[in-house]
Amino acid sequence: MVNSIYRKALFDIPDSLIYLDGNSLGPLPKNVSARVAEVISAQWGTHLIRGWNDCQWMQQPGSVGDRVGRLIGAPPGSVVLGDTLSIKVYQALSSALKMRPERRTILSEKGNFPTDLYMAQGLINTLDADYSLLLVESSEIEAAIDESVAAVLLTQVDYRSGQLLDMQKITALTHRAGAVSIWDLAHSAGALPVDVEQSQCEFAVGCTYKYLNGGPGAPAFIYVRPDLITLTEPALAGWLGHDAPFAFEPDYRPANSIGRMRVGTPPVLQVGALDAALDVWEDVDISAVREVSIELCELFIREVEARCSQLRLASPRNASDRGSQVSFSFEHGYAVVQALIDHGVVGDFRAPDIMRFGFTPLYINEADVVLAVDKLELILRNDIWRQAKYQVVKSVT
Amino acid sequence: MVNSIYRKALFDIPDSLIYLDGNSLGPLPKNVSARVAEVISAQWGTHLIRGWNDCQWMQQPGSVGDRVGRLIGAPPGSVVLGDTLSIKVYQALSSALKMRPERRTILSEKGNFPTDLYMAQGLINTLDADYSLLLVESSEIEAAIDESVAAVLLTQVDYRSGQLLDMQKITALTHRAGAVSIWDLAHSAGALPVDVEQSQCEFAVGCTYKYLNGGPGAPAFIYVRPDLITLTEPALAGWLGHDAPFAFEPDYRPANSIGRMRVGTPPVLQVGALDAALDVWEDVDISAVREVSIELCELFIREVEARCSQLRLASPRNASDRGSQVSFSFEHGYAVVQALIDHGVVGDFRAPDIMRFGFTPLYINEADVVLAVDKLELILRNDIWRQAKYQVVKSVT
Repeated sequence: MVNSIYRKALFDIPDSLIYLDGNSLGPLPKNVSARVAEVISAQWGTHLIRGWNDCQWMQQPGSVGDRVGRLIGAPPGSVVLGDTLSIKVYQALSSALKMRPERRTILSEKGNFPTDLYMAQGLINTLDADYSLLLVESSEIEAAIDESVAAVLLTQVDYRSGQLLDMQKITALTHRAGAVSIWDLAHSAGALPVDVEQSQCEFAVGCTYKYLNGGPGAPAFIYVRPDLITLTEPALAGWLGHDAPFAFEPDYRPANSIGRMRVGTPPVLQVGALDAALDVWEDVDISAVREVSIELCELFIREVEARCSQLRLASPRNASDRGSQVSFSFEHGYAVVQALIDHGVVGDFRAPDIMRFGFTPLYINEADVVLAVDKLELILRNDIWRQAKYQVVKSVT
Repeated sequence: MVNSIYRKALFDIPDSLIYLDGNSLGPLPKNVSARVAEVISAQWGTHLIRGWNDCQWMQQPGSVGDRVGRLIGAPPGSVVLGDTLSIKVYQALSSALKMRPERRTILSEKGNFPTDLYMAQGLINTLDADYSLLLVESSEIEAAIDESVAAVLLTQVDYRSGQLLDMQKITALTHRAGAVSIWDLAHSAGALPVDVEQSQCEFAVGCTYKYLNGGPGAPAFIYVRPDLITLTEPALAGWLGHDAPFAFEPDYRPANSIGRMRVGTPPVLQVGALDAALDVWEDVDISAVREVSIELCELFIREVEARCSQLRLASPRNASDRGSQVSFSFEHGYAVVQALIDHGVVGDFRAPDIMRFGFTPLYINEADVVLAVDKLELILRNDIWRQAKYQVVKSVT
C-alpha cells in the first residue's frame, strides 16, 4: 500500500531533507515551475488582457475549485477558489448569521486556529449588535450546541494537537439544534477522507498550501451546500460574484451559482501553481493516504516514546481521533525544533511548548520517520538544543 | 521628454501589437519570469516553510507596499499589499463607518466602478442597520457632501470616461463636512502624480495589475493616513493583522502599524511578480509620465476626430480633467473593438457603447498612436467591424 501512493519523485525536495511540515506549507511539485512560467510568458505575456477569455483565467476559480472539491467529497459546482482562508471564514460566518437572524451566538473551540476566532470577533465588532463568540473546550462542544447557537465554527483537525473532531456527528447535533455548521478543513483537505456532502454541513472552507501543495499564499476555497448556494447573502459582495460582472450594473445581484462566493480578481499565477500541484493528486486514493499516514504517525509515536523520554505526547493516542500530524510537548520545544531543522528534519513549533510534525505519505516513508527520530534522539541526548544559536526566536515560527 | 520615460525594451510585448489596454491589465515586464522562477525554485523549493523567515515573505506586503506607496505620495509604513481591491474597499469603508458612528450615509458616484458600490451594498446589508448608499452624478458630488455623510467613496479616474476628479478639493470639502474620505486609485497609481499625504484623505485603495504591471490577479493595496492607523478598527480581523500572529493568542489585538490592514497569508508568487514589475518604475518621474500621457491622449483625440467622424468623444476634452485614457462612444463599439484587436490594436469595451483606450508612455509612443488610428479608420471606413465574427460576445469584455 505504501508503494502505491509514495511519489516523492514528483516533488522537488532538497536532498537529504526530511520534511515533516507539509501540514504548514507543502513542498514544490516538480511541474509547478513550468506551469507558472507558461502562465506568465505564454499566457500573460502573449495574450495580455485577452487571457481572461483565451486562457480561462476567469473560469479557473470554479474549474480548479472543482478539483479541490473532489478531494473533500464536494459535487461539481459547490466549491470556488479565492482570497485567503480568513476571508472565506468571514464569508461563511456572515452568511450563516443571516440564515439564523434570531440567534446571537457563534460557538467555537478555545483551541481553534486564531484567525477563525479573530475573523468572528471582527465580524461581531462590525455588526455592532449583541452577538457573542462562545468558546469551549473540545470536550464540551457537543454539550454546548443548543438552540441559542446560530453557527458552529470548528476546525476538523486541531492545528496544535492534531485532534480530529467527528464532523458527521457534530454536524448532526448542530442541525438538531437548528444551527448552521461551518467546518474549517485547513488540516483535512489532502490529509484524510472528507465527505462534506455526506456530512450535510452548510459551509466548509480551507487552504490549499498545506497538504495540497499549492505554494505560499495559494488561494483558499469555500464550499456551500448546493441547496443553499442561492440562499446565501454575500457580505463581501465583489463584482466577480455578480451574476453579470461585465454588465457593470449599479446594483449587486449575486450569481446563481457558487460564483457568488467570489469577490475580486483571482490571483492567476497562484491559481496556475495550484492547478499544476493538483495533478499530483489525480490518481491518488485518499483512503490509502489516510491508511499510510496513520502507520507513519504510529511509528513516530512508538519510536519517540521509546527513545526520547523527555517528550510528552500532545496528540490523541488513538489514531482515529488524530489527523495527519503528531505533536509532542517539551518545555524547550522551540530550541529542539530549531536544532532539528539544522540537522535536516523540518517540523515546526507552536507556542507555548508544542513540537509539531506532519506526515504526508506522498513524500514521507517509514525510513524517513526512523531517521527523523534518530536525529531527535541525538539532539536530546547530547543537549545539542542548548546551543545558543537554537534559542534565537525568529519572526515566524 | 518622451525618450526619457519610453522603455518598451523592458517589456515582453508581442511584435507589432499596439497595446492600449495597460489600464486594464499591464503587459509583462521582462524581469518578472526570472523573479517568479526564483521565488518558486530557489525560495519555495529550497527553503520551504523557512521561506517565511529566510526570504522575507512575511515582510513583503509592507516592504513592497512601500514601493507602491512612493508612487502615490504615501510615506513609508502607510501602505500594505494584500487581497483584492474589493476587499480593501470593504476594509476602508467599514473602518470609516466606525469613525463616524452617528452618521448613516455613504456617498459615492453613480458611475463609480461597480465593485466599489457592490462592496458598500454588501457591507450595508451585513450591518443590517439604517445605512444608505447615496449615488449622485459626478457633477453633483460636491453639493452632496453634507453633515449626514459618514464617508465619501470615490474613484479618482472614472473607469469609463476617464474623468479625473479633484482629489485635493473634494477631500477638503469632505473634511469640512466632517466626513471620511476614501479614494480608489485603480486608474491613478502609475498613471499620474498622486499625493495621498498632501490630500489628507483618510484611506486610499488600488490595484497593481493595471499601470503598475503586476500581472493578472496582482495584490491590491491600502493606504491609511499615518495618524489614524492605530485608530482603525479592522472588520476583517485576520491573524496576519494581529500584533503578534505567532503568539496564537485567543483574542484579536491589531498591530500598531499598517499591518493591521493585513488579513491572511499573502500571495507570495504574485507579490514576487509585482516586486519585479516595480523595478521598471525605479527611475521614472511620474510627472514626466503624466506629461507624455497627455500628449498621447491629445494626439489620439485629434486624429480620431479628424478621421473617424462616427465616434463621439466620451472623455473630458480638457486634459487636466482626464486620466490616462480616452474613450469614444459608438453604437457598434463592441464589434469595432473586436475588429481592432484582430488588427493588432488592443483596447477594450465597456457597456453600453464605450470604446476605451489607455495610454501608457512607458511602452506607447506617438507612432503607435497614429498607427492605431490608421487601423481604426480602416475598420470604420471599410465596415470591417460588420463581419459576423466581430459580433460574437465573449464572457469577459
